[in-house]
Amino acid sequence: MNNDGKLSGSFSCPIPFTSSDTIQPGHGGGGRMSRDLISDLFVRVFDNTELSRGDDQATITIGDQKLAFTTDSYVVDPIFFPGGDIGELAVNGTVNDLCTSGAQPLFLSAGFVLEEGLPLEELSKIVESMKRAADRAGVSIVTGDTKVVNKGSADKLFINTAGIGILDHDYDISCRNVRAGDIIIISGTIADHGIAILSRREGLSFTGTIRSDTAPLHEISRLLMETAGGGLHAMRDPTRGGVAATLNELAQSSEVEFRIYEEHIPVHPAVTGACEMLGLDPLHVANEGKMVICVTPEKAEQVLAALKTHPLGKDAAIIGEVFDEKPGLVSMRTRIGGWRIIDLPAGELLPRIC
Amino acid sequence: MNNDGKLSGSFSCPIPFTSSDTIQPGHGGGGRMSRDLISDLFVRVFDNTELSRGDDQATITIGDQKLAFTTDSYVVDPIFFPGGDIGELAVNGTVNDLCTSGAQPLFLSAGFVLEEGLPLEELSKIVESMKRAADRAGVSIVTGDTKVVNKGSADKLFINTAGIGILDHDYDISCRNVRAGDIIIISGTIADHGIAILSRREGLSFTGTIRSDTAPLHEISRLLMETAGGGLHAMRDPTRGGVAATLNELAQSSEVEFRIYEEHIPVHPAVTGACEMLGLDPLHVANEGKMVICVTPEKAEQVLAALKTHPLGKDAAIIGEVFDEKPGLVSMRTRIGGWRIIDLPAGELLPRIC
Repeated sequence: MNNDGKLSGSFSCPIPFTSSDTIQPGHGGGGRMSRDLISDLFVRVFDNTELSRGDDQATITIGDQKLAFTTDSYVVDPIFFPGGDIGELAVNGTVNDLCTSGAQPLFLSAGFVLEEGLPLEELSKIVESMKRAADRAGVSIVTGDTKVVNKGSADKLFINTAGIGILDHDYDISCRNVRAGDIIIISGTIADHGIAILSRREGLSFTGTIRSDTAPLHEISRLLMETAGGGLHAMRDPTRGGVAATLNELAQSSEVEFRIYEEHIPVHPAVTGACEMLGLDPLHVANEGKMVICVTPEKAEQVLAALKTHPLGKDAAIIGEVFDEKPGLVSMRTRIGGWRIIDLPAGELLPRIC
Repeated sequence: MNNDGKLSGSFSCPIPFTSSDTIQPGHGGGGRMSRDLISDLFVRVFDNTELSRGDDQATITIGDQKLAFTTDSYVVDPIFFPGGDIGELAVNGTVNDLCTSGAQPLFLSAGFVLEEGLPLEELSKIVESMKRAADRAGVSIVTGDTKVVNKGSADKLFINTAGIGILDHDYDISCRNVRAGDIIIISGTIADHGIAILSRREGLSFTGTIRSDTAPLHEISRLLMETAGGGLHAMRDPTRGGVAATLNELAQSSEVEFRIYEEHIPVHPAVTGACEMLGLDPLHVANEGKMVICVTPEKAEQVLAALKTHPLGKDAAIIGEVFDEKPGLVSMRTRIGGWRIIDLPAGELLPRIC
């Protein structure tokens, strides 16, 4: 969970934020409304150090064993999409949240909420897809639960996975550990997942040419740790809210300034085209198999070279640098040379994207 | 998860089971259809030793630390009911699943699926209720997730919790460890939760006089282990499907015969009345704060006396014995002296009870 405070410095959000007394789609969008709900309700009430850290997983110690523990519910619509399905997503997403701490993912739980009338054949396909994804990521789904609700009380199926990983390193890899001077790297092209979902959902003509990037990042995170060691300060997978949300969360948690360079951000040409047609900023669109990485400048080129040796890192690129001037600010030098502020999405851009 | 095979012996279910190619309410009812879906799909495909054990939690080892890991999704309707709410239930239910292995519950995750339009005030009440329940059970909610779906795509809110506990004992407490000669104990009155939900849902006149028994059983399980030691063979909390489902699961997993005695089963008089009015068998109705216990006969009286010292065990009773004649069979001597078979519920008696 992300428990950032307000934007530091002298900048304010250009879109007025309207509070509401009911849950709105924006509360689940991964942007400003999500952040406020999480910090004002969940983090405040549950009140413990782990949750307050704002990482995508909790670091817990049992006996003398350090573990990572995380959970995500998956409500993506449609449940089958170009490049994957809700089952594969539910395994990879939770595996990746464990990986962002440098943990080795080991065990997953799976909780299903099924709508009456869901074809068993579809459920079987999804369960088999989860098994393949678990095998690929080297995890076992060891415990589970099934609930059924009447037709109309849920939409097809929702899956929750929780995951446990072993933390067998002493590096401080955290959203609060980014430092001025760090280099910002992205492990590949951005916005593929969100655009794949949207194209299938809306029946757009580029359906099929753009595929979700859903993938487990356990090998990528291992590679990063082996290459950068203690020089690896933060890893985060930019899902809901996209790279923009992740950069804002990191900048605010670590109280540093991020500057990125538009021409260095890798985007698949078909995704660029789709974003232009739909009026979306690829920085705000979800990814499901990418990592934003902050490393010391001494390690940056080595890390980039290592990433490019892996199929999931072949399009990796250095996209920016970290400064200490304006803590909490993320800005981008555009292709035409100007600078613009990259803010958290205010509400919900793409509902049920994951 | 329960992965029981078919009923052993020469008995068969009197209600014909019709297979279907879509998900039906019965697939989530905790009875025969649930069991078959779990064993034929989830356990078969996910294919690992932990899931195949059929306990309510998985026992996992990380480093040299033995842990219990479990998950449950909560879809109860209504979300506020006499004696509790969905938040309290989501904490207690997962705590109790950990307790059935003799684990000490430590950490919980919480995944929320929220329907657009849910009043924030209701969500706040539920989150605060979860915090109180967590404090009572001595656990921390250390990681979480929030998803929002459009109005009509879910019903108010669903909560998933996963839990981790430490296993700091070497006893074999498992659904597969019940032995002929064991004594069967229930920790208190049965069917309170299911009838409380149903009465509120249907607006029945006994609303409010019957309250859910939702409670954390961590002190009860500790007490049982301290009192019975290795003589404690199995603990299980009889939720969906009621005591009948739990006894059947234990009898089948351990390949033993269960005989229980109707006149010894504690039922609140108002619950008996409600069950008679509604045509329900209290043995099939869900509990959320009770434990079914199997212990060696040498320890039975001591265990009963210990239970009665605790507020959550004051109505505890010995309800039956374990035999080896007809493995997998559960039968009950009725008040009028005859014997009847206690089968797994075939389908769904009370949808969205937890």
